[in-house]
Amino acid sequence: MKDSGPSSRRQLLRMSAAVGGGLLARPDRPRAAEDMPSELGAPLGPYGDRSPFEKAVRWRRDTKTPQTGSSFTPLEDSVGTLTPSSLHYERHHSGIPTIDPSRHRLLIHGMVERPLSLSMADIRRLPSVSRIFVLECGGNSGSEWAAKTAPDVQRSHGLASCSEWNGVPLSLVLTEARIRSGAAWVIAEGADACRMERSIPLPKAMDDILLAYGQNGEALRPAQGYPLRLIIPGWEGNANVKWLHSLKLADQPYMARDETAKYTDLMPDGKARLFSYQMEAKSVITFPSGGQTLSSPGLYELTGLAWSGHGRIERVEITTDGGRNWAKALLQEPRLPIAFTRFRLPWRFDGREAVIASRATDESGYVQPTRDALIAVRGTNSAYHYNGIKLWKVHADGTVTNVEV
Amino acid sequence: MKDSGPSSRRQLLRMSAAVGGGLLARPDRPRAAEDMPSELGAPLGPYGDRSPFEKAVRWRRDTKTPQTGSSFTPLEDSVGTLTPSSLHYERHHSGIPTIDPSRHRLLIHGMVERPLSLSMADIRRLPSVSRIFVLECGGNSGSEWAAKTAPDVQRSHGLASCSEWNGVPLSLVLTEARIRSGAAWVIAEGADACRMERSIPLPKAMDDILLAYGQNGEALRPAQGYPLRLIIPGWEGNANVKWLHSLKLADQPYMARDETAKYTDLMPDGKARLFSYQMEAKSVITFPSGGQTLSSPGLYELTGLAWSGHGRIERVEITTDGGRNWAKALLQEPRLPIAFTRFRLPWRFDGREAVIASRATDESGYVQPTRDALIAVRGTNSAYHYNGIKLWKVHADGTVTNVEV
Repeated sequence: MKDSGPSSRRQLLRMSAAVGGGLLARPDRPRAAEDMPSELGAPLGPYGDRSPFEKAVRWRRDTKTPQTGSSFTPLEDSVGTLTPSSLHYERHHSGIPTIDPSRHRLLIHGMVERPLSLSMADIRRLPSVSRIFVLECGGNSGSEWAAKTAPDVQRSHGLASCSEWNGVPLSLVLTEARIRSGAAWVIAEGADACRMERSIPLPKAMDDILLAYGQNGEALRPAQGYPLRLIIPGWEGNANVKWLHSLKLADQPYMARDETAKYTDLMPDGKARLFSYQMEAKSVITFPSGGQTLSSPGLYELTGLAWSGHGRIERVEITTDGGRNWAKALLQEPRLPIAFTRFRLPWRFDGREAVIASRATDESGYVQPTRDALIAVRGTNSAYHYNGIKLWKVHADGTVTNVEV
Repeated sequence: MKDSGPSSRRQLLRMSAAVGGGLLARPDRPRAAEDMPSELGAPLGPYGDRSPFEKAVRWRRDTKTPQTGSSFTPLEDSVGTLTPSSLHYERHHSGIPTIDPSRHRLLIHGMVERPLSLSMADIRRLPSVSRIFVLECGGNSGSEWAAKTAPDVQRSHGLASCSEWNGVPLSLVLTEARIRSGAAWVIAEGADACRMERSIPLPKAMDDILLAYGQNGEALRPAQGYPLRLIIPGWEGNANVKWLHSLKLADQPYMARDETAKYTDLMPDGKARLFSYQMEAKSVITFPSGGQTLSSPGLYELTGLAWSGHGRIERVEITTDGGRNWAKALLQEPRLPIAFTRFRLPWRFDGREAVIASRATDESGYVQPTRDALIAVRGTNSAYHYNGIKLWKVHADGTVTNVEV
């Protein structure tokens, strides 16, 4: 495309060449659309909604309390790289509070010279930045550890979503509060009923964390922490405290429930890794994926999403023979750091069973491991930070399922 | 920020340096948030909505038929660079049709060897691309021609919005249809009751146009052409035909109503420019802007949006003294071609009247003109393609209004 720079232009030409002719193997006799209104349609509206024909929703496992648990983004219906705010995954521990922004404050206290209490108006007046970032729950794909493989990509990988976030660099506000010598941690607390708490090392807090109040061009959604949350680029979702009301500077971590009993990684030797915030490179094919069906043999475009907490996705490879051969996928530009990167590859389904998977490499050189390689290091006691290669089986009849492992 | 590359890192450091200390001139006594629930909040949901405290809506001028007219994006409430799909501007000529995608087809006919009729399933199976593009109505800011200046930025500039669009390169489909020698135009027709028609030169159709079915990660919204529309990078919105059902190859343009009676530029000599599709570089300050109030003197961040149909925004300058002096604004990275680029500049409001404005330069070197410079060439007969520098007056009491011109 003319304006997307030479690499995208080349990419499109390669794609065209790859598909050659025969894109449309069985053309219909030309016929017109059947749904052509001859009367005026709906009027212009103040705040729009999607078509009644669109049905994609977040999926939620039944729990005793519908206020707690996880709901999953329908990645199989995703196009492009962004997640609609209405479909961003949720992980709540005591429901979604309804907070009046005019009564909300952020307290910065503890080991500081100048404690601060900021209103939302104070925060919105400060210098801000906008960045597109993926957010992924530390427990995303957790069922894959025990080979309890999910039947579709929503349930296997849907605790990851990508938004444009807007907010104030946390470092600006911490600098204003004048951190005392000896402070080494920032304890963040949410205003939800459970008062979610997480401990963040000061160097990260002074680096790239955002006090975010905007998401995809408007205010944060309530389910995403309205009116204020932390956005911690590349770190597990749970640390990105929602409904943020307090930041306390301390000389040690708080050792909160969600950094001791939960969100730790139990290793094969029975010891647990604490504070394993960082999300590694990961990818998954979203089409075709579990639960979908290819209507006939022929040419298709394999597509999916790749991301890494360490930065840009450098390469994605695709296998259609269960891992023996790998082909380089086309990556949608621009590849933004710590954001969903859409990958694509034309593929001719010849009506024979095929096992397909993707493998991501990030700019640090890290390569997404196989499940076996991951388990060789981590064992199977873990619930968090699963990023193994994900296989789908395309059956001869075109149906797609998970693969028994 | 660590992962945003050296230029963004430098930009943030410059911003921090520019604001120095004193970001928060009048700290409150530290006090806690007043709105801290102690009970479980709302349950997880299938398809989320915004906070009931958020009230931004599209504004619409009253018309006899609410199905026709324009509704404007509330740019004064925007953060970052994307527009929520629910707030994307609308311009409809016969309302929003409700189209069943399973009954919709795209007919490609006229001067082709192989007429095609594609279902949405056919189209969604083809190789696709995703791109973030601004879309701007040719009539955006039209009231500025006659000095009937709008009171706020929603009404002066709100017929522009920015989304991630996903779709099939039009060139792929036209190639499949085998264009006959002599064909020079593509006549696009919408399925709305008025059968909106526009003529597009073949070289542009074979360059970078998308058959778009995705917007911001989900299906196109009905008000944006569900299930299929044209996205023509850099061209006036009207040509980006919504509810697209027919593409007819022809050897001449159709000379439709909206390219002869409307969407033409009447020049001072009484002749009209036809087919002036291209949108030029433009920018506007969104904060502070008409209708807003600065609560007190002190430090603020001026911010706004810049874009160009020709590619990337290269520079934005800001004046706070009515155009005598200009300072370079910070540009949010990444600066994507033909997309909203957010600009920012710290500014100390000293309680004296100030006239503020922004001036964009795009990668072609084109500089956004003053209103006088624009009128010197175009006269004041035009209704379309106004991109003059937009002035706001900050009064001594902090209120902000338009400037009489």
